[in-house]
Amino acid sequence: MMPKEMVGFIEDDLTRVEAAIAKHLESEVSFISDVARYVLSSGGKRIRPVLLILSARLCHYSGERIYDLSAVIEFIHTATLLHDDVIDNASLRRGNPTVHTLWGNEMAILIGDYLYSKAMSLALADKDHLVMQTVSNVTVEMAKGQVIETLKLRDLSISEADYYRIIALKTASLFAASCTIGAVLGGLPPTQRARVSAFGHHLGLAFQMADDTLDFVAPEAKLGKPVHNDLKEGKITLPIIVAMQCASTREAQVIVDYLHSEQATDADLQHVIALLHKYGTLQFTLDKAQEHVMQARQCLDGFAPSPALEALHVLADYVVARDV
Amino acid sequence: MMPKEMVGFIEDDLTRVEAAIAKHLESEVSFISDVARYVLSSGGKRIRPVLLILSARLCHYSGERIYDLSAVIEFIHTATLLHDDVIDNASLRRGNPTVHTLWGNEMAILIGDYLYSKAMSLALADKDHLVMQTVSNVTVEMAKGQVIETLKLRDLSISEADYYRIIALKTASLFAASCTIGAVLGGLPPTQRARVSAFGHHLGLAFQMADDTLDFVAPEAKLGKPVHNDLKEGKITLPIIVAMQCASTREAQVIVDYLHSEQATDADLQHVIALLHKYGTLQFTLDKAQEHVMQARQCLDGFAPSPALEALHVLADYVVARDV
Repeated sequence: MMPKEMVGFIEDDLTRVEAAIAKHLESEVSFISDVARYVLSSGGKRIRPVLLILSARLCHYSGERIYDLSAVIEFIHTATLLHDDVIDNASLRRGNPTVHTLWGNEMAILIGDYLYSKAMSLALADKDHLVMQTVSNVTVEMAKGQVIETLKLRDLSISEADYYRIIALKTASLFAASCTIGAVLGGLPPTQRARVSAFGHHLGLAFQMADDTLDFVAPEAKLGKPVHNDLKEGKITLPIIVAMQCASTREAQVIVDYLHSEQATDADLQHVIALLHKYGTLQFTLDKAQEHVMQARQCLDGFAPSPALEALHVLADYVVARDV
Repeated sequence: MMPKEMVGFIEDDLTRVEAAIAKHLESEVSFISDVARYVLSSGGKRIRPVLLILSARLCHYSGERIYDLSAVIEFIHTATLLHDDVIDNASLRRGNPTVHTLWGNEMAILIGDYLYSKAMSLALADKDHLVMQTVSNVTVEMAKGQVIETLKLRDLSISEADYYRIIALKTASLFAASCTIGAVLGGLPPTQRARVSAFGHHLGLAFQMADDTLDFVAPEAKLGKPVHNDLKEGKITLPIIVAMQCASTREAQVIVDYLHSEQATDADLQHVIALLHKYGTLQFTLDKAQEHVMQARQCLDGFAPSPALEALHVLADYVVARDV
């Protein structure tokens, strides 16, 4: 659950976002509506719509376009989740069986494609070139990020710079786009709009870094998916990258072996995690995330006090402090 | 190869389409460029770009927008091929190993996503709301068609109407969109534009129906992929639908058994194909395709004679007469 002080005053807006999502999922192909509804009502935090709405409110926008555009962002997000789950062969998402587990890989791919195209069509209906440009750019960036991440799977020579590039493209870009759209709705001039976008960018980086530490420490029940999934899938995140830098040759070999073993055991994994604790790389990652939260906050300097501004500050802390 | 009298006078245009495709595949992620180039230069017929260019010429358009917009259409087409090949687990496409065979399902999915998003971004850069609307609509329709087709796999109760709906959405829609874009470029008024779109629609239906017969009769070497793939994948196309209507209970059971057997042999398949020949359903399908070619041709009535008009008529015959 997101903090009440953050979303309390936009509760009505969020209800209308849900209505917009439900409305635009209606399809004369009832199967599409059913599957899309299943995945879109499975307890997502709606953090991107919250960002979009708060950014719009920050810029004194009070119209109705936030609802459909929030649906656009959430559809894009969901489409990538569907494709990710096929790629990662993930069986659970937010505690529920994934779409590809229930209806097969083909349906996860196709419903993902459908949601992508539906998002584009909804964004186009908004009839604002800047909004459409933002939506179009972000989908290219996200696809690029996913490709790079996949290329770097199991590659322990991945650098911190590679890591930042990947999470900037695959995660922070959509956070930034959500904020950008809010700023566009508010009619902000380019320089100020860039600050709101940068807020989203830094928040997205922090969010992903927190996610990458949670993957090692959150209890499975809370995360709604198996822990240590990233490493099992060969995703080398910051805690591992830094551990590789700190580790002795022998210790590094433990990580190398884990990644290249076909039948690594839980005990092997615990050895890897012990190294993360030994070198404090989870805390290091959270500290870095915290730095991006600070940078995000600074982007908001100069905006007049308002409930939206306050909520964005609370949200900034939340993305790192959350435990799921 | 497409008939010279059809594409001869737009040869320069087609060269420039290739250049546009190559240019827009450039990515700072060289792997993306490499894979996308591999799949986009593997001997596709470029029939959709030809349609777009000829439609534009028919409407006296002589500008440069045809090149990038042809790339848009071809990117969308290629994205669906990439995802299809994962879904169908196809190993060959145009005689070459498929992307998912060479680089894995994840890359086929992600490069497909990339091409989709790149297509949208290119279409947006054209800055014509009608063009963008056309591109956006067609991706929704294609995704819908793919979902319905997948839902109907191995379902012998599929009707002719279902079949037409599927091929209209998954194939004819992109043919129609190619023509629509040409007509939009030519600044045609809505009613005439609708005729050009309808030409593409009927041509697309005929093309797919011819494809669905070729799947049973074309020699593997020519098709560049294994024959009888559709049926193996459980796709019930018109030749089978009609055969089910004509067959005796015992004969129908041959088809039912084939579809539901885990280990159907080639001999089983030959029994099925014998039924198609017995009831002439391949010819029936080609006759129906020919009817759509006629309907397509009629859509061109009223356009003044021109090389483009002539070429479109030749193209109309080609889609059914082709042997691959």
